[in-house]
This record gives sequence, C-alpha cells and structure tokens, in this order.
Amino acid sequence: MLHILFLVALLFFPSFEAADFCVAKLKGAGSPSGYACRSPANVTVDDFVFTGLGIAGNTTNIISAAVTPAFVQQFPGVNGLGLSSARLDLAPGGVVPMHTHPAASEILFVASGKITAGFISSSANTAYVKTLNKGDVMIFPQGLLHFQINAGGTPALAIVSFNSPEPGLQILDFALFGNNLPSQLVEKTTFLDDAQVKKLKGVLGGTG
Amino acid sequence: MLHILFLVALLFFPSFEAADFCVAKLKGAGSPSGYACRSPANVTVDDFVFTGLGIAGNTTNIISAAVTPAFVQQFPGVNGLGLSSARLDLAPGGVVPMHTHPAASEILFVASGKITAGFISSSANTAYVKTLNKGDVMIFPQGLLHFQINAGGTPALAIVSFNSPEPGLQILDFALFGNNLPSQLVEKTTFLDDAQVKKLKGVLGGTG
Amino acid sequence: MLHILFLVALLFFPSFEAADFCVAKLKGAGSPSGYACRSPANVTVDDFVFTGLGIAGNTTNIISAAVTPAFVQQFPGVNGLGLSSARLDLAPGGVVPMHTHPAASEILFVASGKITAGFISSSANTAYVKTLNKGDVMIFPQGLLHFQINAGGTPALAIVSFNSPEPGLQILDFALFGNNLPSQLVEKTTFLDDAQVKKLKGVLGGTG
Amino acid sequence: MLHILFLVALLFFPSFEAADFCVAKLKGAGSPSGYACRSPANVTVDDFVFTGLGIAGNTTNIISAAVTPAFVQQFPGVNGLGLSSARLDLAPGGVVPMHTHPAASEILFVASGKITAGFISSSANTAYVKTLNKGDVMIFPQGLLHFQINAGGTPALAIVSFNSPEPGLQILDFALFGNNLPSQLVEKTTFLDDAQVKKLKGVLGGTG
Amino acid sequence: MLHILFLVALLFFPSFEAADFCVAKLKGAGSPSGYACRSPANVTVDDFVFTGLGIAGNTTNIISAAVTPAFVQQFPGVNGLGLSSARLDLAPGGVVPMHTHPAASEILFVASGKITAGFISSSANTAYVKTLNKGDVMIFPQGLLHFQINAGGTPALAIVSFNSPEPGLQILDFALFGNNLPSQLVEKTTFLDDAQVKKLKGVLGGTG
Amino acid sequence: MLHILFLVALLFFPSFEAADFCVAKLKGAGSPSGYACRSPANVTVDDFVFTGLGIAGNTTNIISAAVTPAFVQQFPGVNGLGLSSARLDLAPGGVVPMHTHPAASEILFVASGKITAGFISSSANTAYVKTLNKGDVMIFPQGLLHFQINAGGTPALAIVSFNSPEPGLQILDFALFGNNLPSQLVEKTTFLDDAQVKKLKGVLGGTG
Repeated sequence: MLHILFLVALLFFPSFEAADFCVAKLKGAGSPSGYACRSPANVTVDDFVFTGLGIAGNTTNIISAAVTPAFVQQFPGVNGLGLSSARLDLAPGGVVPMHTHPAASEILFVASGKITAGFISSSANTAYVKTLNKGDVMIFPQGLLHFQINAGGTPALAIVSFNSPEPGLQILDFALFGNNLPSQLVEKTTFLDDAQVKKLKGVLGGTG
Repeated sequence: MLHILFLVALLFFPSFEAADFCVAKLKGAGSPSGYACRSPANVTVDDFVFTGLGIAGNTTNIISAAVTPAFVQQFPGVNGLGLSSARLDLAPGGVVPMHTHPAASEILFVASGKITAGFISSSANTAYVKTLNKGDVMIFPQGLLHFQINAGGTPALAIVSFNSPEPGLQILDFALFGNNLPSQLVEKTTFLDDAQVKKLKGVLGGTG
Repeated sequence: MLHILFLVALLFFPSFEAADFCVAKLKGAGSPSGYACRSPANVTVDDFVFTGLGIAGNTTNIISAAVTPAFVQQFPGVNGLGLSSARLDLAPGGVVPMHTHPAASEILFVASGKITAGFISSSANTAYVKTLNKGDVMIFPQGLLHFQINAGGTPALAIVSFNSPEPGLQILDFALFGNNLPSQLVEKTTFLDDAQVKKLKGVLGGTG
Repeated sequence: MLHILFLVALLFFPSFEAADFCVAKLKGAGSPSGYACRSPANVTVDDFVFTGLGIAGNTTNIISAAVTPAFVQQFPGVNGLGLSSARLDLAPGGVVPMHTHPAASEILFVASGKITAGFISSSANTAYVKTLNKGDVMIFPQGLLHFQINAGGTPALAIVSFNSPEPGLQILDFALFGNNLPSQLVEKTTFLDDAQVKKLKGVLGGTG
Repeated sequence: MLHILFLVALLFFPSFEAADFCVAKLKGAGSPSGYACRSPANVTVDDFVFTGLGIAGNTTNIISAAVTPAFVQQFPGVNGLGLSSARLDLAPGGVVPMHTHPAASEILFVASGKITAGFISSSANTAYVKTLNKGDVMIFPQGLLHFQINAGGTPALAIVSFNSPEPGLQILDFALFGNNLPSQLVEKTTFLDDAQVKKLKGVLGGTG
Repeated sequence: MLHILFLVALLFFPSFEAADFCVAKLKGAGSPSGYACRSPANVTVDDFVFTGLGIAGNTTNIISAAVTPAFVQQFPGVNGLGLSSARLDLAPGGVVPMHTHPAASEILFVASGKITAGFISSSANTAYVKTLNKGDVMIFPQGLLHFQINAGGTPALAIVSFNSPEPGLQILDFALFGNNLPSQLVEKTTFLDDAQVKKLKGVLGGTG
C-alpha cells in the first residue's frame, strides 16, 4: 500500500512549487510587487523568523525613542505576504515624531508603559488622540500624519504591524529640514518663518 | 431575419446589468470600496461628465491659488472606476502648500504657465524638484509630501488626476495648525517653537 | 488675514469627507469589501482603539490556551483598513491547535514566554517549525496550516496581526469533528479510522 | 471533558461570522465590490450550486450558438469570490461573435466537439488563433477582442470561467449596431460604409 | 490613402508592447506577482493553449482519483492573468481528499458522472455538502477545507477553475502525515491518537 | 545637539530604501506587476517628468488626429504607480476611432476646442454620448468601446489619464483589418460583408 500511496503523491504533486511564499532576494532589483523570490530549496524556517525585535532600541538620543523595523529589507520572509512589523521604544519623555507611512495602515499594540498616540484625518483635519495603556491596540489609517509619545514615567514599548512589507516611513522634520530643499521653498509651502526653518535645517543637517 | 436576430439578442443578454460602472448614491452610507450604485435605469451620460473643472478657481486669497476637485463627491460617475481629477489655479506668486494624498498617486499636466513642483521621498528624504513648462507632466507617488508653486509671472493652470475616486487631501498646515491638537503636542512631535506654532494656530483657526 | 485664510480653507476643503477610514456599522449587511461606514460625524477616537487585548484570556480549558480576537466584529475601526490583531494566551502545556486563516497572512510577536510555532507549505508539504523566544516575530503565509505551542514552563503571550479585518479562523478539529458532516464522509476524505473520528466527534459535539 | 471542550469552542469562536463568503442580495443596490451579503443564517448549500449550466442553450438562431451565463445575477453564491462561469453551445456552423469581457480574463475548456478560437492583442494587433479539440483549454486575456467558432460537423460545447463574478460581455455588433448611436458616428469612428452600417442596424434593431 | 493610413498606424502605435499578457519564463526567479514575461516576439498561440487536460488522469491508485493541473507551471500563458484550471478524474469510489487552496477560490463543473462535494466554513464550522449531477457548477470559497467524492457507479470527470495562476494545493493528509513533522507535534495540535498518527505517517511516508 | 540628532537619523533610517517608487528598467523582462526597478541611486527628478505631451501630434493624416502616449514605455517613472497619461490632438474633422483600453479606465479633460465623445456599455449596449466643451471632464469605464471626435471648427486638444501605467490601446479597425486574421473569420464573427472587410483590409494593410 505504501507503494500505491506514493503513486498518489506523484499524481497529486506534479513537479512544481506553489507560490505559498516568496522569500526576498534582496540583492537583485525589485519590482512593483516586491523582490524576486529565492528558490524554495534554499529557504529554511529561519527565513520566516526575525529576532531583531527582541532587542531594545537605543533611546539615548534627542527624542528619547527608537524605531526598530522588521520590514522586508530586514526580514526577507515577509516579501509578497502583505505584512511587516516594528518595535517602538520610548524612554520617559520619548516621542516618535509626526510621520506617515505612505504605503500601509498601522496597528499598534502597547506591550508596556503608557503611550499618547494620535492621527489627523485628511480634508476634515480632525485630530484623533488618546492615551493608551498596556494591552491597548490602536489603528492608524494609511498615509495620515500620526505620532506616539510616552505618557508615563517609565519606558514604554509598542509593537506595530503594517499591511505591507514596505510601508515606508516619512518623518515630517526629516522631510522638511533634513535635505537640500531650499529654505525659501520650505517657507513658501509651509508658512513657517525663515528663522524657524533655518534653525531646524541647522539641527537636522539640511542645506539650502 | 430580424426576428431571429432579436432571438439572438435574448439569448446573449439574459436579464442582468453588467457592472461596467457604479454611479454613486452619495446620500447613503459608503463602504470600503466606495458608495452604493444608482440603478442604471436612472443613469445618463451627464453622470459621466463633470463641467466644474472648466471654471477657474478664485485665487484672491492668501496663497493666490485654488484647488477645484472632481472627486467622487463632486463627480459621482467616477465611483468604483479608480480615477478622479482636479484643477489647480495658481496666480502669480501662488502656491499649493505642502500636502499629501493618502490614498492615491497623482499625475499633473501643466495646461498653462510655469510651475515649480516637487515631492520628498520617504526614508531617504530626497527632494525631487523641477520647474515644469506648459505641456509637461509629472508623477507624484502615493502618500508623499509634495507641493506646487507658480514659477512665472502669469497665471498657471494644472490638471491633476489620481488613481482613486477619493484620493484624500491632507494639507500639512491645516493638519498641524487648523484643529484642536494641543500646541504642546504639536511642538513635541514637530520640534517647532512654541511661538511659531501659536502664530500659525492663530492664523489658521486652530485652538489648544 | 484670519478672514482670508478661512477663505483658503473653504476653497481647499469643499463639502466632502475623505475616505480615510470607514468605521463599521456592524448591524447592517456587509459587502465583499466589508461593512458599511458609520458617518464620520459619529466617529470618535474610541472607535480606533480596542482595549480587549489587554485582558488575559481564560486558559483553564482542555488546550490550556485562549485566543482573543480584535477583528472587525470586535474592533469596528479596522473595517476597510486591511489589518486586525489578536492575542494568544498559552498556559504551560497550552496549544493553539492546527488551523488556517483563509483570508490573511499572520505575523506573530512573542510578548512573553517561549513558543514553538510552525506551518506547512502546500504542494511540497514542508514543515517549517521553530521555537521562538520573547521578542521574536514569525510570519505565517496566507491559508496554510499552522500551530503554536507553549514551549516553556511559564505562561506565554503572543500578539498576532493579520492583513485583513476578517482573516477567518478555521480550526482543523472543529471543521472535521464539530459539525454534522457524516463520519463516513470524514473518514473517506481524511483516511482517519472510524473509531478515531467518532471519538473526536463525541468530544467536540459533532453529529453524524 | 465534553463540557471543557465546549468551553474551548466558546473561547475560540467569539460571537462573529467570518467573511468566508457573501451570497448576493440581488434586490438591493450593488457597490463597486459587488452586492450586499445575505445573512449566513439564511444561506444553504444550494446558494453555492448552480444547475443552469447543465441545460443546453437553444442554438436555433442566426448564429447557431447560445451563451448561458452563471454570473452573479444568475448564481448569487459567487458574489465577492472572484469567479464565474458560462456554457457555450455551438451547433455546426455556430459562432460566438467577436466580443470582449471588460472586467475579466477567460479560460475556456472544450467539453465536446472542435472549436476555432482566437483573440487579438492590443497595440501590436496580433491575432492568436487555434483550432481546439475536446479537452483543450485556452486563455483569453482581459478586455481583448475574441471569438469562438464551431470547427467541426458536430455540436460543440465549451465551459468558460472568468476571474470576476461580473465579467461583462460586450458583443461588437450589438455595441455598434444594436442601439441608437447615430449611423454617422458609427461610420466616422469605424470607417465602415454607410450601407454596411445601415444594413446591420436594420438587422440588429438599431436606430439613428 | 494606404500610405496615409500607415502613417496613422505609426502615430497610433509608438514603439511599445502593451501588457495584454505575460507568458511565464519558468526558468527564472518568480516575484510576488508571478514569473517574468517572455518577449512577445517569442510568444505564439500555443502559449495560450494547454492540451494536457484532454488526457484522463490515472486513477488506479488508493484514492481511485487523479488531479491534473493546468497551473502556471504547466500552462505558462496564464501567468499574470488571474486564472488557472485542473481536471479531476474520479473512478467509482474515488475521492479527492480534504484539502484547501490557500490562494484562490474554485469553481467546479461536473463534465460527467455524479460527485458529492462539500466545504466547511471557518469560525461557524458549517458543512455545505451536495451531490452534483452532470452540468452542475459549485463554488468553493478561498482557503476553506473541501473535498469531492464520486457519488455514482461510473467514472466522474470535473473541470475546476481558480482565480489565480498558482492556487496552491494543501492536502490535509499529506500536510499532517507526509513529512517530518514529529508525531508528538501532530498529536498535540490535532488531538489525534498516537496510533492513528503513526499509522498514517507509515502509509504516507512521513517520519518523526 | 547636531551630533545627537544625526544619531536619531541613523536610528530612524536603517540601511534600506523604501518602495516609494520603482522607475522602470525598460530593457529587462517585465513581470505581471510591471518592470524591474532602477536603483534609486540612479534616479533623478527627470525620471518623474515627461515633456513629450507638450508637443502637438501630427494630425496631417486620414483621421486628422494623433495620440501621444505617456505610458510606462515612454515615461518610466510611472511604473508601479498606477497612472499614465496621453494627449489627443484633433484637427477640425478629426476622430479618434472606436477603441478600448483593456487594462484601465480613462478620464479625459478638454484643454481646448469642442469634442463629441461617447462609450457603449456592455450587456445593455447603451450609448452614452456627449459634446464636451473646454474644461469638461468625462470618465470612460475600463474595457468599453469609446471614441472622440472634434465637434468644432478649430483644433481640439484633450489630456487623458489612465489608472494603469500600461492601459493598452485596441483600435477596432486595426484589430479587425490590420493583421493576418483571415477575411472569412472576420466576416463570420462580425457579420460584415466580404467587400467591406476586403476594402478595409486593403486600406489598413491586413492580409488573409
């Protein structure tokens, strides 16, 4: 009977690999749907596991916060699967500044501490802000400005997930002040004062 | 033969309406895919035509510019069809301030005048800026901060299209300064000075 | 200037609500894209926050485990946004039995404890199994059989996210033994022995 | 133990219905994603089965052919599931005239007889034509003009499937000659002669 | 006039190929959206036709059944077009065992014979089972466990189509018993008895 | 502080490029989702700008019209971004003949002149026709036959946009008469007379 059932196997499984997954070949060129797939023969369970989120980010910086991504570039197993994650470490007083993810919505879980989080709707400009406790989840719709702030006296940790392996991360201050976009253009398009723009360009390494 | 061919018609066209289009019932509740469809029996060609983009926007305002949308709320025929448009009027000195469309990429055509336009990439923060002449088109990837400025001494007109009937429009200054998001939160998440935030909140009608 | 800028606001924001979000009206009929949207006028930040994942599930049961979902039915704010979450509580010896999510991939974060998790590829039937430590994340491709087991002597907690507000949950044993599918059909389609099928049907409340 | 496992069931299955399927309420308004869902409580297996394709279409007409659809309007169980089917009956000499499906690709299986089928690519205008035997399958890319002709002396039967519950069906001759589109416009946009247009308008019931 | 119209052709058809189709280069690496496209210059109508479904599968095996796929690996013309097919041969007493397609819904047409088919919903665990006659079609929602059994005394043939070129095929018994997943893990996650697991592992070639 | 903030930058921007855009490598093989991406290091703003639509098409031809595309093959920056554009020049009497775009809906803006445009619905065969003035926009649903005609005594210009970088363009006359599809097949599938077919094949360079 063993022999016969192996025949079954052959009949049911012609010579092909299903498209269950597509672990990224990060070295090659991407495509609009993501990276090329590594051969399943070279894939192991370790490609589907990422250990980097177990390590606290270094929050000894000006924002007292750190973001550690598990996007496709760090975690090639998520390629083509429509998901990725990151950890947010917020020391007391820490803040993840105003930012957007152009390509994904975000769901945030507070693993420890207290976090004040919010997003602003488009067109109506409504601010949705709430202080979250350990265990709470909050959803941030795709592409909207949002932020997270430590709302307690102890370190806070959040785990966030995105419905894209490459959600993107556009931090407002870096976008405005951390490049060579001329101050004059920044001022004209944001109504910020020249002194304000130049101060932040100075701090964030921007030129122009 | 006429009789026979009408029989053909009956055989080929059983009693159903195809889903070629889904003109929006704007009064009812929407769904994640858009508005409910009006009955095809009540649809005419006028539902697929929008005349509002033929009228210049009023640019006698502080930004010397105007945006006239033909999104699904103004133009119900685009519901479910993955497209919408808008016109941008830019008087000399006019500017469409820094903004994003959370739900769509944008393609801009310069119908008249000269426009300096740009967008900023996420993560790498690169500013892509160019002065466009009449007839040029520029593409703005979904969700990224971008702007348009009149770059000449005469009025400029651009027609923009989006790959969504509801692209959304989040203008940075209105999002930061035009609502009740407390100044303290704005400052903490943007590194802007208190005086700057309060000045713009005052101007844009924000509170807190 | 205030007056003029409010004019700007009117020009930029014609009378429409953008489709940033679509908080579910759970009482009404759904559609293939999800539930109808509640009016934004009735939406508050609490619609985007779910506190139920902060409460440990009751693991005093035969599997020493509990799954607490934050799918659209529990958390209407995720409707249309392509994400949902759940918490898994695994007491020592606990197991989340073999199951699939027909409509989503899953990313799992180990918040505490040690978990052995695995999935089986289709066609090639390869088992990808790994013992995960606190802080590890693992990705489970859409629709594949997978499981989680407490691999330590202490309670384990995992937070999982899905790229759908309604990922579905098909637990193998409930699908085979918890309904009125006749034993004869179960046996013929699974090769399980009659005694085995009847035993599990008895335990899980199945008939036939 | 029974008691305890039922507790498991309650823990695993909170009070919600998964979105496995969405059987169409055909009476109500559709949406861009399809029809509203009937309550699962009112759904039976008969909603997922359609018997109408078992009945040969009446081919005693001018084209000696018949198309019997199992689209969402006839088969509400396919709503939201991305598939539909139809049967093509071709008497000797029968033809399914040049047509497109605006919203789906098509895969055709020859159940009996011989069929010459073809499609024309866009831009390059290449005609891909082949005579198919019983058991052959052919794929027709979305939106391209294609046709099927009985290529033998016996009746032919094909079963076709589409990757949409509402593929649409635009038959070239009905589109050009079966409505009130003025002859002058037809002629100007197709280069067909006036006599030809009027002849076919006469036959197909067109006016103008 | 010929000369002039060829000029038209040049004006209308600048030097590009449209993306009507993308016949798979099976040798190269895939991507999340499928295989790379062969050059249209090397594509012929034979790439869009597959003759393998015309040949009855060999049912002289333990399940008295055979599945013959026309997925992208066998039929490269379906790459990127969102469809594929397969034939099911069921000798008297034959069965296609309990399985899922992780990446597609399925529509089944009974070409000859009688087939009892069913699927089980997720969450609610309802079994939808029906005996189908020649000509009936049945829809199986994506990712749900389902099966087909010959319900008559004569051979049965079904043609199935999927809304993906790579639907995947996860046969429950092969997933559980046909690999090196340790018996202890299988038992713990399925509640099956050790003897049952070992018996089926023995038969299906599993180890551990 | 500068030093510290640069540390922030490093923490926030680990070594990866976001998938904001994917400028096409046109030389390589495409995939179902589009062309492979050029390295962002080699991308400049000029990749996001196309100047070819600023040049009037040559309308000294039989249709007194010209179509100038800005599809991905001409404008590689639109790859993966779901949009493209084209310009239509219509001299007095000019016509864009009956055609479809198999892969996209179209939105048309009248930049100058008067244009009569229309499309025909599938199944119901309704013709939706309207004469458009400067500034009007009209939407054409995906895959449906449509046309544009100069409706005034002066040149007309339209800018059209599509929700795909590769919308495709199937012009009815070229599809029917501009290739080697045998006249007999054309006649049998369109009901056109032999003389009509041969006349147009002669004019458009078709054979067979």
